[in-house]
Amino acid sequence: MPTIGDQHIVKSYDDELKRLHDALARMAGLAEAQLAAAIEALDKRDSDIATRVMNDDPKVDECEHFINEQTVRLLALRAPVADDLRMVISALKAAGDIERIADHAANAAKRSLVLNQMPPVAPMRSLVRMGKLVAELLNEVLDAFLAHDAERALAVRSRDQEVDDLYSSLFREILTYMMEDPRTITACSHLMFIAKNIERVGDHATNIAEMTYFIATGRSLNDQRPKRDTSAYEDGTSPV
Amino acid sequence: MPTIGDQHIVKSYDDELKRLHDALARMAGLAEAQLAAAIEALDKRDSDIATRVMNDDPKVDECEHFINEQTVRLLALRAPVADDLRMVISALKAAGDIERIADHAANAAKRSLVLNQMPPVAPMRSLVRMGKLVAELLNEVLDAFLAHDAERALAVRSRDQEVDDLYSSLFREILTYMMEDPRTITACSHLMFIAKNIERVGDHATNIAEMTYFIATGRSLNDQRPKRDTSAYEDGTSPV
Repeated sequence: MPTIGDQHIVKSYDDELKRLHDALARMAGLAEAQLAAAIEALDKRDSDIATRVMNDDPKVDECEHFINEQTVRLLALRAPVADDLRMVISALKAAGDIERIADHAANAAKRSLVLNQMPPVAPMRSLVRMGKLVAELLNEVLDAFLAHDAERALAVRSRDQEVDDLYSSLFREILTYMMEDPRTITACSHLMFIAKNIERVGDHATNIAEMTYFIATGRSLNDQRPKRDTSAYEDGTSPV
Repeated sequence: MPTIGDQHIVKSYDDELKRLHDALARMAGLAEAQLAAAIEALDKRDSDIATRVMNDDPKVDECEHFINEQTVRLLALRAPVADDLRMVISALKAAGDIERIADHAANAAKRSLVLNQMPPVAPMRSLVRMGKLVAELLNEVLDAFLAHDAERALAVRSRDQEVDDLYSSLFREILTYMMEDPRTITACSHLMFIAKNIERVGDHATNIAEMTYFIATGRSLNDQRPKRDTSAYEDGTSPV
């Protein structure tokens, strides 16, 4: 039987783990909101929303900073093992992915401000469609991650191909649009980079899915999805 | 006085830390070589080199996988503290950055294969110049990281602005080139993404510089460099 002293120690350790989990949940919620707002800003050409996304980005960075400190503290003082250790290490890595996701959202918002000063371009519709799919997958994978639900995470991971396919088709659409009307080159260049931002969010969501599997099972997924970005070949060449 | 048994334990712990350090050094060397080769492939329009870079990318992934496993093992079995803990956590995070660097090099190599099937475009010269600068900064920062030399790492970090400036000027150059000759739009789009790949390598080098500071001093650098990519404003608009 643990003494009252032991219980106190265990309680406090559990509290620290819970605090780390809550910080991750908060950070995940922020990043989801940032991405959704960035896509709304693009869709509605709303510069106020875009500006808010840019201004809110430091909040996500603060979350990452807190999680990093909390993780180092837990490792140093509590020396967690097994499930707890996997959870702590995954928190550290996932926080890095979530920070990058928010960064991509802020970057997309920043570019949307520039786009709002130019005439609209048609491929924006496909871009917004892709953005909404990625936002949906991100929400799903973050829920799975926080619940340590490997099965649900793997289901999301298997859908990243949809994102890649949309991205490749969007890349072709933008290229064609630029060629047909070279006056849209500047706007379309920004569109390309926003598309890339969103596609990268999908890759980070895949990373988080893989971490979820690691937390839940203790094993790594080695059968990496083979390719991330096939747009290099979108001009129909087959370089290898 | 430690007993023979204790010495054995300490010795083996030191060996494990050294093995982790050596794995990082090897991974760093591989990533440097991959980036240098990718830039050479672009410069010389050499598809053999580019293909080699793409084929060698899994080696870097294997290094990261080994480092991840070794890190989890060390944390679980040795519960390192203080300097050792910072070193182990930084190894885990740096391995992620180095893997991304190699990924960017492989992506640049892949796009160079496509570019080699099109007529050369003039902005490639500026791209190669930027690539060589980033490769130089990367080598410097990885040396500093492996030597835990905070001062040297900060010196590299302060030079990332040079990379960002080159990137912004290159972005303008590519846009202008496309507008003047819309037949180059496809080639120039790939060039833009390669430029972005190289600029991102510079950001990861900055991350590694900040980790070096953390290992050497135990403190985080909170005065984050304010902006990473100013190309959103390269058309002369001032969106905020």
